[in-house]
Amino acid sequence: MLVVMQSSATPDEVRAICEKIEALGFQSHSVEGTQRYAIAVTGDLRGIDTCGIDEMPGVGEIIRISKPYKLVSRESKPENTVVRFPNSEVTIGGEEFAIIAGPCSVESRAQTLTIAEKVAAAGAKLFRGGAYKPRTSPYAFQGMGVDGLKILAEVRDQFGMLIVTEAVDAEAMTAIEDYADMVQIGARNMQNFSLLKRAGRSPLPILLKRGLSATLEELLMAAEYIMSEGNRNVVLCERGVRTFADHSRNTLDLCVIPAVQKLSHLPILSDPSHATGKRDRVIPMALASAAAGANGLLVEVHHDPEHALSDGAQSLFPNQFVAMLSQLGGVLPVVHRTLNTDPPKARKAAAQVVRS
Amino acid sequence: MLVVMQSSATPDEVRAICEKIEALGFQSHSVEGTQRYAIAVTGDLRGIDTCGIDEMPGVGEIIRISKPYKLVSRESKPENTVVRFPNSEVTIGGEEFAIIAGPCSVESRAQTLTIAEKVAAAGAKLFRGGAYKPRTSPYAFQGMGVDGLKILAEVRDQFGMLIVTEAVDAEAMTAIEDYADMVQIGARNMQNFSLLKRAGRSPLPILLKRGLSATLEELLMAAEYIMSEGNRNVVLCERGVRTFADHSRNTLDLCVIPAVQKLSHLPILSDPSHATGKRDRVIPMALASAAAGANGLLVEVHHDPEHALSDGAQSLFPNQFVAMLSQLGGVLPVVHRTLNTDPPKARKAAAQVVRS
Amino acid sequence: MLVVMQSSATPDEVRAICEKIEALGFQSHSVEGTQRYAIAVTGDLRGIDTCGIDEMPGVGEIIRISKPYKLVSRESKPENTVVRFPNSEVTIGGEEFAIIAGPCSVESRAQTLTIAEKVAAAGAKLFRGGAYKPRTSPYAFQGMGVDGLKILAEVRDQFGMLIVTEAVDAEAMTAIEDYADMVQIGARNMQNFSLLKRAGRSPLPILLKRGLSATLEELLMAAEYIMSEGNRNVVLCERGVRTFADHSRNTLDLCVIPAVQKLSHLPILSDPSHATGKRDRVIPMALASAAAGANGLLVEVHHDPEHALSDGAQSLFPNQFVAMLSQLGGVLPVVHRTLNTDPPKARKAAAQVVRS
Amino acid sequence: MLVVMQSSATPDEVRAICEKIEALGFQSHSVEGTQRYAIAVTGDLRGIDTCGIDEMPGVGEIIRISKPYKLVSRESKPENTVVRFPNSEVTIGGEEFAIIAGPCSVESRAQTLTIAEKVAAAGAKLFRGGAYKPRTSPYAFQGMGVDGLKILAEVRDQFGMLIVTEAVDAEAMTAIEDYADMVQIGARNMQNFSLLKRAGRSPLPILLKRGLSATLEELLMAAEYIMSEGNRNVVLCERGVRTFADHSRNTLDLCVIPAVQKLSHLPILSDPSHATGKRDRVIPMALASAAAGANGLLVEVHHDPEHALSDGAQSLFPNQFVAMLSQLGGVLPVVHRTLNTDPPKARKAAAQVVRS
Repeated sequence: MLVVMQSSATPDEVRAICEKIEALGFQSHSVEGTQRYAIAVTGDLRGIDTCGIDEMPGVGEIIRISKPYKLVSRESKPENTVVRFPNSEVTIGGEEFAIIAGPCSVESRAQTLTIAEKVAAAGAKLFRGGAYKPRTSPYAFQGMGVDGLKILAEVRDQFGMLIVTEAVDAEAMTAIEDYADMVQIGARNMQNFSLLKRAGRSPLPILLKRGLSATLEELLMAAEYIMSEGNRNVVLCERGVRTFADHSRNTLDLCVIPAVQKLSHLPILSDPSHATGKRDRVIPMALASAAAGANGLLVEVHHDPEHALSDGAQSLFPNQFVAMLSQLGGVLPVVHRTLNTDPPKARKAAAQVVRS
Repeated sequence: MLVVMQSSATPDEVRAICEKIEALGFQSHSVEGTQRYAIAVTGDLRGIDTCGIDEMPGVGEIIRISKPYKLVSRESKPENTVVRFPNSEVTIGGEEFAIIAGPCSVESRAQTLTIAEKVAAAGAKLFRGGAYKPRTSPYAFQGMGVDGLKILAEVRDQFGMLIVTEAVDAEAMTAIEDYADMVQIGARNMQNFSLLKRAGRSPLPILLKRGLSATLEELLMAAEYIMSEGNRNVVLCERGVRTFADHSRNTLDLCVIPAVQKLSHLPILSDPSHATGKRDRVIPMALASAAAGANGLLVEVHHDPEHALSDGAQSLFPNQFVAMLSQLGGVLPVVHRTLNTDPPKARKAAAQVVRS
Repeated sequence: MLVVMQSSATPDEVRAICEKIEALGFQSHSVEGTQRYAIAVTGDLRGIDTCGIDEMPGVGEIIRISKPYKLVSRESKPENTVVRFPNSEVTIGGEEFAIIAGPCSVESRAQTLTIAEKVAAAGAKLFRGGAYKPRTSPYAFQGMGVDGLKILAEVRDQFGMLIVTEAVDAEAMTAIEDYADMVQIGARNMQNFSLLKRAGRSPLPILLKRGLSATLEELLMAAEYIMSEGNRNVVLCERGVRTFADHSRNTLDLCVIPAVQKLSHLPILSDPSHATGKRDRVIPMALASAAAGANGLLVEVHHDPEHALSDGAQSLFPNQFVAMLSQLGGVLPVVHRTLNTDPPKARKAAAQVVRS
Repeated sequence: MLVVMQSSATPDEVRAICEKIEALGFQSHSVEGTQRYAIAVTGDLRGIDTCGIDEMPGVGEIIRISKPYKLVSRESKPENTVVRFPNSEVTIGGEEFAIIAGPCSVESRAQTLTIAEKVAAAGAKLFRGGAYKPRTSPYAFQGMGVDGLKILAEVRDQFGMLIVTEAVDAEAMTAIEDYADMVQIGARNMQNFSLLKRAGRSPLPILLKRGLSATLEELLMAAEYIMSEGNRNVVLCERGVRTFADHSRNTLDLCVIPAVQKLSHLPILSDPSHATGKRDRVIPMALASAAAGANGLLVEVHHDPEHALSDGAQSLFPNQFVAMLSQLGGVLPVVHRTLNTDPPKARKAAAQVVRS
């Protein structure tokens, strides 16, 4: 922390600040500039407010320096975190570029299995689909709940894909832990700290989406909540932030990808479907995400988006999904990554993943 | 819903859209402009996606018209909602301008009772203080929990003030219902839909704070979640939104006050403490909120902000609080409101509020 | 400037930074914290980039401390600037609360004189009206130019009001200097540095509107451009910033008013008409601006807004303007200001302002 | 335009609106929905305000439909605009991916020629460098002016690269037309309409950068200003917008690229240097821009960024520039584009571009 004094501050005022800092148990170091004094404060300041120093006479401004996160930080763990799944060779965070595909919502057994068949045929190894849906309107479809989870479990059994699905509260998370392989925490719950703590006690890896107006530091602190409870398998996801721009649903902030990778060892995915809200923007933003260095994609696919109960307008058709994978295959070598998909249609004979 | 066609759209394409709309069970009305066609869609479209129409040939843009909210809307209830409390004459939403004051957090019995004594002496009838604290860092003070609630109950018994405190999850809400008079849902939980539904089943009035990047429609839809479960006593609160501006913690969006009042019958308060984050901005923004037509204020007061465990820098000193009330007394007649405080120090003899 | 080292930085790396700083002609002061080193840099750093220090090994972050502005700063001039006009008793920035009213655009002699008659009758002493209009579309009405200025001069002669009008380029500013009393620089030109420099050489006071996404520092630096060329009569104006919020045209950031007043001696007005874009929001935001401590208002009035060539939807009717002044009269004593208007209709006998 | 009535609107109120619309010279088409009426307005509404309809009894909301731009629109010109230069084979907007590289500012003859030599050796065909610099501070380096232009002309003569440089006002544009091949209008001047009109009369192609908070529509309307004066050679450039995000200087909004390409025939570049402000983010964002479908890049290169007079922290070193081109060569085939550079070092023998 740095206390910048007003140019009119007197030496007595500087001295009073230093005494206050020492009294609080920290160390003070005053520096005299050409125009004003500054006082550097050292000691373990994490979780500490300004303790009233900002109100003392002569103080101009308080500047915080030390980062509040610890476990998520690359300084605490220089090597990249690679998330692994039991009895599976799939990884997230390493050289593989993860593709997590599927419908926004599990709407019915038939719809889900149809889409699963298509994304599996395209080579996907991770399947997404919401059984619990956070919807802006109480009158909109809220998800199938446990019945939806059972359908997702059937997808895993039948196609050997790992299942990623969202928990909207502690109760949903407990149910999900019985059926899925990875739990998503959505953007609107990124600072639902009770849910984050619960996620920290989950045996499953957590996919944590960035909030609509979350700073990089808040995103990392949300991950810190999870890690501080013991769960080290956290994957971040950029999904667009809210800005004045009105040409897409949200503004995909791809520059957060290298920024996360500099500060943290955690993997970060991109969700071009929710970011753009429009099908014809999904592939350009998917390719851009890969080129920016993302560790993978969360992408919506629907065989019949006209009749989707949610977010149909942003879902790729299965053939667009296949085309996207092909284009990604061209981009990824440039950033030294490989698609974590099987070759299309060659997947049938692949060994089934058996759940531990 | 309005479907605006591209200028190059053919009559056949227009016809196909109309047929699709009718097939979905809605009515279509095509309108030929000088440059292009538009098709108005009528019927009950709440909770409906664009059903793939946006992907059909010739379509330029889809514009939604009907508002998705119902119970919160002034069209459904033209007169203002006035929230009342059992065995109390306090109201929120009527002619009275509500003052809800107290510390950010309940830190100890001594701290809370000291502050309560001061705000009660200043005339306040509603007391705030957090027993459950949503904090960005897992390492920061998280609140005293039930022990804090018991201290708040003691404040009510001793000073006759109604208690407002925040619930961060369903468990906290259940505990709060035993001790407090009004439950706050914080900005970070404004779209925690599970918590909103739980609030809708609470017997207590709900104080719902606007999310950091919530649109007016999202704020109203969050209130709709609560109301749709049966709880009609909802009070909204503007507390600043997140923007690029860096001179205050958030940007207090006072224009949302007349905007809410036009669209909804629900009361709306302002929280100048969280919005600004700086003590010397709180009073100007409190007066501005009153002049803008707010139904009251949520304001932090601390007798010793230097040692506050959270948000000390934005808490008013008790004598500033008294001064603010005096200035508000000058502004409120202009907007036809009256302070809901007792005259300072005259409060001692006031009848105690007994809890039902 | 403060250089915060990475926690892994070596003493040699710290030493190298210090040597670099000294070589650049500044002073370095290293501080050892519990987790990492920081190096304070002192000397006159205004206008200096980070000089490559941010790229040196071991550097974590660079934090700038010294403010880049000088002439606008309250530190350089503690007392408030009060702008005065030749041969007039009108002031801006003192105890008087300035009302600058009139139509968005000068559309015709008849329209302008009609409105002028009404705002003068209401007591206004400063008249606004655009002869040069910055419009988003090249096909929209661009203003009457010099013919409009002549009409404004007629307003001054006939009603004794001072004239405020916008310059969109250097040519317009030269013309305006012949006819008006104060030159406005619009939000879209706030960082048109050529125009700012030209304004700094104008004999007239400048009304500088905040850009749509200007930070407080950028606003002050724009004023610094004007002042650095010699013109000390600068009045700032908050007119709403651009955010995600869609319920008003812009988001009026009233908290910038106390923020400006803390950092600078310059007056600051508020423009509730452009900020909200909607007539029914103008009066609430006008009252809020006064309560927040603004030095005055820029407000649009039109007798026939249905036929206005620009911004009709945000113009007050003359009777609303009168009502607003009456309400302001109730709010202003709270903040120790007085309306700078004459009593309505009593103005006729007032001495005419004669231009020097 | 669509007028949505309140649900409480009476048939008489609907009729009054329709009559008003017809009286204004437009056509009205009323549509009765299940909950409310809507009235579609047709006719040529470009540049028209709401004409007071929004204030009439029973009106709920006005929704504008017709796009205000014309010449920039893909509907008016379906094929992509390809900008060409006299006596050069360089194109922007076609299959070639344009690389415009060089220092932020022309600081001296030696610095500029050194950098030019390096970017030419890497194969670049377009050189950038500012002779007129828009700077936030009046005390910062403002550019070398005409002396800088002469240095740029020397770069063209010596290395055969085309010159792109920024005009900050009409005077600078006139000077630039004597020395350069393309004129840049910077983000802060995107709505300097006087300058846009002047650019519309320039014989040179214009590179128009998106303003810090410009919507897509405003960007296109700024281009419309230029085109409406006769200059059809306009190239747009995304350079980051201003948001709450604080991990990069601006937020690069890559999704605007497919959005522009859908609505307009104009080319669009990306400027990862200004968007990020940090060297280590430039290459990831450059690759992402290419993958998103941009028509090229504006990128800063400096051989000695530590001593740059502006924006050193975001300039690539020459060897990073070479590496970036190599990586772009891997990404571009995926989006069917080719780098418009010569093979590195093979450029020496290339024919000199002679200026017409």
